[in-house]
Amino acid sequence: MSELVRVAVDAMGGDNAPFVTVKGAVDAIKESDALKVFLVGQESAVNEELAKYDYDKNRIEVVNATEIIEMAEPPVMAIRTKKDSSIVKAMYMVNHGEADAYVSAGSTGATLVGGQVIVGRLKGVDRAPLAPLIPTEKGSSLLIDCGANVDARSNHLVQFAKMGTVYMENVMGKKNPTVAIVNIGAEEEKGNALVKETFPLLKNCPDINFIGSIEARDIPAGEADIIVCEAFTGNVILKMYEGVAKSMMHVIKKGLMSNLKTKIGALLIKNDLKKSLADYSMDQYGGAPMLGLKGLVVKTHGSANEVEVKNSILQCVTFTQQKISEKISEKISQ
Amino acid sequence: MSELVRVAVDAMGGDNAPFVTVKGAVDAIKESDALKVFLVGQESAVNEELAKYDYDKNRIEVVNATEIIEMAEPPVMAIRTKKDSSIVKAMYMVNHGEADAYVSAGSTGATLVGGQVIVGRLKGVDRAPLAPLIPTEKGSSLLIDCGANVDARSNHLVQFAKMGTVYMENVMGKKNPTVAIVNIGAEEEKGNALVKETFPLLKNCPDINFIGSIEARDIPAGEADIIVCEAFTGNVILKMYEGVAKSMMHVIKKGLMSNLKTKIGALLIKNDLKKSLADYSMDQYGGAPMLGLKGLVVKTHGSANEVEVKNSILQCVTFTQQKISEKISEKISQ
Repeated sequence: MSELVRVAVDAMGGDNAPFVTVKGAVDAIKESDALKVFLVGQESAVNEELAKYDYDKNRIEVVNATEIIEMAEPPVMAIRTKKDSSIVKAMYMVNHGEADAYVSAGSTGATLVGGQVIVGRLKGVDRAPLAPLIPTEKGSSLLIDCGANVDARSNHLVQFAKMGTVYMENVMGKKNPTVAIVNIGAEEEKGNALVKETFPLLKNCPDINFIGSIEARDIPAGEADIIVCEAFTGNVILKMYEGVAKSMMHVIKKGLMSNLKTKIGALLIKNDLKKSLADYSMDQYGGAPMLGLKGLVVKTHGSANEVEVKNSILQCVTFTQQKISEKISEKISQ
Repeated sequence: MSELVRVAVDAMGGDNAPFVTVKGAVDAIKESDALKVFLVGQESAVNEELAKYDYDKNRIEVVNATEIIEMAEPPVMAIRTKKDSSIVKAMYMVNHGEADAYVSAGSTGATLVGGQVIVGRLKGVDRAPLAPLIPTEKGSSLLIDCGANVDARSNHLVQFAKMGTVYMENVMGKKNPTVAIVNIGAEEEKGNALVKETFPLLKNCPDINFIGSIEARDIPAGEADIIVCEAFTGNVILKMYEGVAKSMMHVIKKGLMSNLKTKIGALLIKNDLKKSLADYSMDQYGGAPMLGLKGLVVKTHGSANEVEVKNSILQCVTFTQQKISEKISEKISQ
C-alpha cells in the first residue's frame, strides 16, 4: 500500500461539531483506503462521538486541543493567542509535516489567516486565494478568489488564473480549462482599473486558456471553467448565488401553495424537483480549497453536514496524490 | 389643467423599435392625463406605426431624427458625431428645456454618456448613478450605482445614498428608507479600501437612515431599501440576479419534464408559478433612472416590451411632478 494521505480535521469547527466532523471522518476513511484522519479537538467530546461508530482505529487518531476559536472572534488575535485551539493546532500539524491537509467548518477568518501565517505560502505565491467550486448548468466552475484578498493587484489575479488552471486540470480532470475575468461587458476596453490592467496580462499569459471577459449573468450558465476576480467581487458573486436561489425558492413555494390545484401539482413534482435543485446546490462539492499554500487548506460551510465534511476530507486525497502544490509551484515559477 | 410633463422618447432604441416605443407611448398617454410624449426618430417609420392607433394627437408629437446609434457603437464617439441621432436629439430637448425627461431602450453606453455630457449634472453632483429597482421578497430595493461610475470614490457613494433616499421617499413612497452598503461581512471593520473609507461617512451622515453593511446574500430578501455600491459591484449584482434566476428556471424545467408524473404536476402549477415569478422579474419597474441630472434620464432594457416602455414613461410623470431633481439638489447641498 502506498503512503496514506494525512488530513488534520478541526473537529470543533462548525455549527454541528463535533457530531458532523466525527461522522464525516468515519465515513471518509470507509470510502478511501488511502486516508488517515487526525481529529483535532477536545479529546473527551471527540472520543464520545467516536465511540458510536465501528471503524479502522489505525486510521483515525484524536489530537487533544483544549481551546475553541468562535465564529465571531477577530481572526488575527484568535490565531495569535489561542495556541491550543483546534484550528491553530491542526494547522501547525500541516506546517510541521505531520499532516498533508487541513479541513475546517469553523471560523473562515481564522482559517484564511492561519493558512497564510501558519501553513504558509508556496515560494513565489504572493497571495493564497480561496477558490470554491460553484454549480453551473454545465457542471461546475472554479470561482477564484472568494475571500482572502480584497484589493488584490493585477499580478495576483494572474497567479489565481494559473493556480485555478492546475486545480481544474488535475483535481477536476478538465482538460485545458477556460479562464475568464469577471467584467461588466464583453469588450476588452470595459472594466474598472484593475480589470483593464489585468486583461492584457492574462491575454499574454501563455500557459492558461484565457477566453476574455465574462459578465456575471453568464457565470451560472457555465461559460468558463475558471472565473477570476478579486475577493470582494468573488464574495458578492458567491453570496448572490445563495441569496437569489433562496429567494426564488420562497417565491416558488408561495406560488405552489396558492390553491388546491397547485398543491396537488406540487405533490406530484416535489421529489423530482428536489433532485434537480440538489444538482444546483453549493453543498455537494465539499468545501473550498485555499490554493498556493504549502499544504492544502479546505474551508467548508459552518452549516456543513457530515456528507459535506466527508467530501471535504476526500478532496484532500486527490489533491495530495495529484501533487497539486508541487504543480502550482512549477506553474507559478514559469 | 396643470402643466403637462413632457417626455422625449428615443423612438428608435431597443430590439423592437419603433413598434414597442410607439405602442408604449400611446398606452402611456391613455393612462396619464398629465403627459405629453415626443417620439424622436425617423419620421416616416414612427408615423407609420402611429397610424395604427387612435390617440390624442395633441399629446404625441413626432420629432425627426435621421440617424441611429447602434448598441455596439463606442458611446463617446457616437454621441459626438451622430448629432442627428434619436438619442442625441432627444437628450438635447431635455438640455434645452423642451422636455422634462428622456426614455430610451437603446445603447446604455450612449445614454449614460449623453446623460452626463448633454443633459448635464445638477450643481454639486459629482457623478450621476444609474439606479434600477430590483425585486425582493419584500417588494423592491434601489440598487445604486449600476453602470455609470466604476472606480467611484467614497464621497460619490455618500451622494448616491442621499439621491437614493430622495427617490425612494418621493417616487416609491417609502418613508425614511433604509440605506446599506454592499460588503463582504456584517462587521464594520470588514471590506475593501473603498467600503472601509465610505462606512464612517455614511454612518455620520445625518440625513439618511443608514443601517450598516449588507451582504449580497441578504439583498434578494429585501433587507435594505437602498443598496449603495460602486458600479462594478452593482453591475455584478444585477447580472447575477438575471443569471441565477435564468439558470434555476432551466434546472426546474428540466426537473418538471423528467417523467409523466412531473409533467402532469407541471400542467397544474404552470399558470400560478408564472404569476409568482412575474413578481420576481426585473421588467415590471419600467427602466432604471439615472439620478442627479438636470432632467430625468430613464434607461430601459434593450429587449423591453411595450408595457416596460409605458411604465418607463409614466415613471417620468411622478418624478417630474414630485420635483425630484430639485429635492436632490437640496439634499446634496446639505
